[in-house]
Amino acid sequence: MIYETIVTTAARDGRPHIAPMGVRFEDGLVILAPFRPSTTLDNIVATRAAVINFTTDVRVFAGCVTGYSRDWPTRAAARVNSVLLEDSLAHTELELETFRDDPQRPVLRMRSVHGETHAPFTGFNRAQAAVVEGAILVSRLFMLPAEKVDHEVAYLQIAIDKTAGEHERIAWDWIMAAIARHRSGAAR
Amino acid sequence: MIYETIVTTAARDGRPHIAPMGVRFEDGLVILAPFRPSTTLDNIVATRAAVINFTTDVRVFAGCVTGYSRDWPTRAAARVNSVLLEDSLAHTELELETFRDDPQRPVLRMRSVHGETHAPFTGFNRAQAAVVEGAILVSRLFMLPAEKVDHEVAYLQIAIDKTAGEHERIAWDWIMAAIARHRSGAAR
Repeated sequence: MIYETIVTTAARDGRPHIAPMGVRFEDGLVILAPFRPSTTLDNIVATRAAVINFTTDVRVFAGCVTGYSRDWPTRAAARVNSVLLEDSLAHTELELETFRDDPQRPVLRMRSVHGETHAPFTGFNRAQAAVVEGAILVSRLFMLPAEKVDHEVAYLQIAIDKTAGEHERIAWDWIMAAIARHRSGAAR
Repeated sequence: MIYETIVTTAARDGRPHIAPMGVRFEDGLVILAPFRPSTTLDNIVATRAAVINFTTDVRVFAGCVTGYSRDWPTRAAARVNSVLLEDSLAHTELELETFRDDPQRPVLRMRSVHGETHAPFTGFNRAQAAVVEGAILVSRLFMLPAEKVDHEVAYLQIAIDKTAGEHERIAWDWIMAAIARHRSGAAR
């Protein structure tokens, strides 16, 4: 089972890094498998620490994947050498347990050493799910045919129109802009 | 903004009722707008109470919508004349504030009088979102062309295959069975 979360890390000099990432929970450990090159990977190898932030603010997913908004407020983690998002519903602080290197996709097995719940979950929102799908789509634009993208966007747009709030609309706008940017071939 | 939740109510004799329902939060109130006929509506009018359960257990959504599993453990609410799901991430207990009747879709505006957080949110899961979409699809089978259903199922199946856990696979199986049942024309 894979959960889409925001992983925050810090470089050795303390500089924060924020990355949407799918994580798995296995045998009481958290498994991260970032594709190289990955600042998250570099930071975890350097600090042996990371935080998983459980947030429903889809602007963070869309903003980071599109590059339109990468800087979200962070603060120091309580127990590990990392940062966490200021706003989330919950977070878990992790320490690196084992590292299996790989030229494409190393596997980091991490142990939870601290967790906090900040706010209650308020239910599924279809627009949030559509943004998550849209963010994954953006990360794969380089390999997807245009019709497939159009088709998927048209489907996801329905949930946006019916159930989005302000955050979801902002996030969706970034996704639409990233698709247009990809098509225009304009390098950012 | 609409959140997909599980609304629990009790009849005057205490009999519990569990229903997946989209809810809105507006001016500090919770808005429910069930389509008639609705046991949830009848119970709220009788007891002036309901509970919104914020759960990521998509079996409850799929089980209730398909009819394959309607009975989930409940217990008495703390502050209102209703029941709540035994298992959820959080719940809010509601009292009826205003009722606008309508032959098709009355509107119930309800005030939160108590809330509890039971467990942290653990991130978005694409398979859970796919089950929620599948449950909505099942509720609209009577009005959707078969190709549209097939197409949507094929799309949602990808997230199930990639990211589902056991609960999501059970829920998805119920949705697939309900679509097959609808097509075979067998009344349950």
